[in-house]
Amino acid sequence: MLNAVSKHTGTSDRPQHTLTGLTISGNLVSITWADGGESAFHGIWLRDNCPTGLHPSTRERQWDWSEFDPAIRPLSGQIDKSGLLELSWPDGHLSRHDGAWLRRHRYDGAGKAERKPQLRIWDAGIAEDLPDCDANAVLTDDQALLDMLIKVRDTGFALVRGMPRRDKACEHVAHRIAFTRETNFGIGFDVISKPDPNNQAYTHDALLGHTDLPNREMPPGVQFLHCLEFQAQGGESTLIDGFHCAEQLRAADPDAFELLTRVPIAHRFHDGEWDVRWRAPAIALDDDGGYHEIRYNPGVGAPFDVRPAEMTGLYRALGLLAARIKDPANVLAFKLRPGDMMVFNNRRVLHGRQAFDPNTGPRRLQGCYVDLDEWHSRIRVLTGENLLD
Amino acid sequence: MLNAVSKHTGTSDRPQHTLTGLTISGNLVSITWADGGESAFHGIWLRDNCPTGLHPSTRERQWDWSEFDPAIRPLSGQIDKSGLLELSWPDGHLSRHDGAWLRRHRYDGAGKAERKPQLRIWDAGIAEDLPDCDANAVLTDDQALLDMLIKVRDTGFALVRGMPRRDKACEHVAHRIAFTRETNFGIGFDVISKPDPNNQAYTHDALLGHTDLPNREMPPGVQFLHCLEFQAQGGESTLIDGFHCAEQLRAADPDAFELLTRVPIAHRFHDGEWDVRWRAPAIALDDDGGYHEIRYNPGVGAPFDVRPAEMTGLYRALGLLAARIKDPANVLAFKLRPGDMMVFNNRRVLHGRQAFDPNTGPRRLQGCYVDLDEWHSRIRVLTGENLLD
Repeated sequence: MLNAVSKHTGTSDRPQHTLTGLTISGNLVSITWADGGESAFHGIWLRDNCPTGLHPSTRERQWDWSEFDPAIRPLSGQIDKSGLLELSWPDGHLSRHDGAWLRRHRYDGAGKAERKPQLRIWDAGIAEDLPDCDANAVLTDDQALLDMLIKVRDTGFALVRGMPRRDKACEHVAHRIAFTRETNFGIGFDVISKPDPNNQAYTHDALLGHTDLPNREMPPGVQFLHCLEFQAQGGESTLIDGFHCAEQLRAADPDAFELLTRVPIAHRFHDGEWDVRWRAPAIALDDDGGYHEIRYNPGVGAPFDVRPAEMTGLYRALGLLAARIKDPANVLAFKLRPGDMMVFNNRRVLHGRQAFDPNTGPRRLQGCYVDLDEWHSRIRVLTGENLLD
Repeated sequence: MLNAVSKHTGTSDRPQHTLTGLTISGNLVSITWADGGESAFHGIWLRDNCPTGLHPSTRERQWDWSEFDPAIRPLSGQIDKSGLLELSWPDGHLSRHDGAWLRRHRYDGAGKAERKPQLRIWDAGIAEDLPDCDANAVLTDDQALLDMLIKVRDTGFALVRGMPRRDKACEHVAHRIAFTRETNFGIGFDVISKPDPNNQAYTHDALLGHTDLPNREMPPGVQFLHCLEFQAQGGESTLIDGFHCAEQLRAADPDAFELLTRVPIAHRFHDGEWDVRWRAPAIALDDDGGYHEIRYNPGVGAPFDVRPAEMTGLYRALGLLAARIKDPANVLAFKLRPGDMMVFNNRRVLHGRQAFDPNTGPRRLQGCYVDLDEWHSRIRVLTGENLLD
């Protein structure tokens, strides 16, 4: 465990966790902390989240969301001797909430702002300050692993240097985090030039910036691409921050941006064994307006099935996004060396490559995926957040 | 291949695939078929989806969506000798589109209506007409497998009878379809009463109707639950059609329904090894207003983090949904026998069980998941749809 965490005692000596007072007004309970902070909570929220009555081992709620009157309000309350918020309810129940827990879960603007991740948005200039990691450290030291996890979470990618040049070494790193995400291309895959390829990656052609598998309801989260051999001429790798391109579009043409967050585009992969299709907007936002994902791969784009009145606007908006994805000012280009591994958030960072000449030598990458749920889970476990209710 | 499919010859003798005329007006090309049907297509859509120029082996688009002017219009057009729509473009390019292909991909109201799946919505009365399947047939015959796949797609579940009472037999059926979906509970899992459980399923307590793992960005799609042993008293299984409950709520209280399609609820699973959290609405609709998914599991509900002004309304709406999920008129209850396997869409159908007494005998189920992308892909491959561009 890397960060100190307060234990479940209900006490804390941090002023931002120490309760100093409460007022009840209607169905709202307002509390103040010793640092002067103040937050209001609904009675129903406090009653529903009372830790008493959770299953002793699973810690699961044993009631459903029809259990309490949505307008329920406590009869009275106090800060008890051990510093807990104690509320007395009409049915005789007493609830006790810890100040640190309340601070962590407050749902007002201040709480939301505190929890929002701080992303590092970038363009080609990031070449001057690459998020590098050392493979041996990542493989053996939890603090180095956490550093890589956080780089990918916040910057969208990391470059791991000095990887063992062994088959499936990328999966070895992936398993430090969690299980891998399987797809129709397998668990691990070799990116080499193949005869009769079923996917553009398996050619020696250039690949424009794209995200992998947007033809799936949930495209794979983090991609590992490990360079095992590279003597071919050409074949430089590219990475593009999709959130940066989207942000540029939002500033330049808010209507086009809005359309791309709402109108679904279609992608499809099909061969003799599979036919996987999905429709979703190219840019997805979360409910607070933050970026959730970029989904963009013209190679496997399927005929768009949108309202006719929006077709021209959709193509126009996608063209504006495409221009930003290709803009050299946005494209980080570099040549992988054997032993280098790119680790990037496939839901944010587009990747591509320049064409290479397979007659000048081999180019062999090996890849696998770990989904973002697992990524964030491992960060929480390494920082001890998983131990906090 | 079970359904006849037209080959890629560009010809078809079906009147609904035979082109009889075209008109070009502005940037729209309107075509008529021999059955009298008529559809309009945008020039940009036709040019972007011209099959000429696709990679010969991967069939991928080799240009991006900034390639053509969104307002592009063909100079002229005709139905050529082999029945294709031939268009001549300002840059000298000639495009040729097949009538059957155009019919399949038309994006007007008629096309959308034709492609929309017809769901069977149900309540407890479905006990009179259960979607049963025979395990031996499903394991050995593609037509029987397809029948099971379609039952789950349209009704939301199927009951497979006569399964071999062997360890991992459910995974054997799953692999007839695709690879399985791994989660923090493993690839396959045993549902038995365990000491010190980390999940309510691993107790002998009652479980109200819920969907599995709504704490993940994409909960597992189809769940297999195979009964290997059952001598305990109690423990009847329950299934509830979440789309039916949502539809009842929409009719009774449109505001509550709308709120549940928009305001995210939070779920979380955490133990010593994992901490997986997600926020999403309880009811998700697709862009045409059809049902996409239900996400509901009070046991692993986390403190809601929503705009304070919506908190009371959210609890009220969830309470109304919860009441429908518990309503005996909506709950199919039945006792699994050893050799029975439930196969259900976990994104639609809630499942639960009544409490059982572990002192009266064993109850052991074994489960695994296959995601919906793979489910639909297998249907398309078994019907030959994957061979159609």
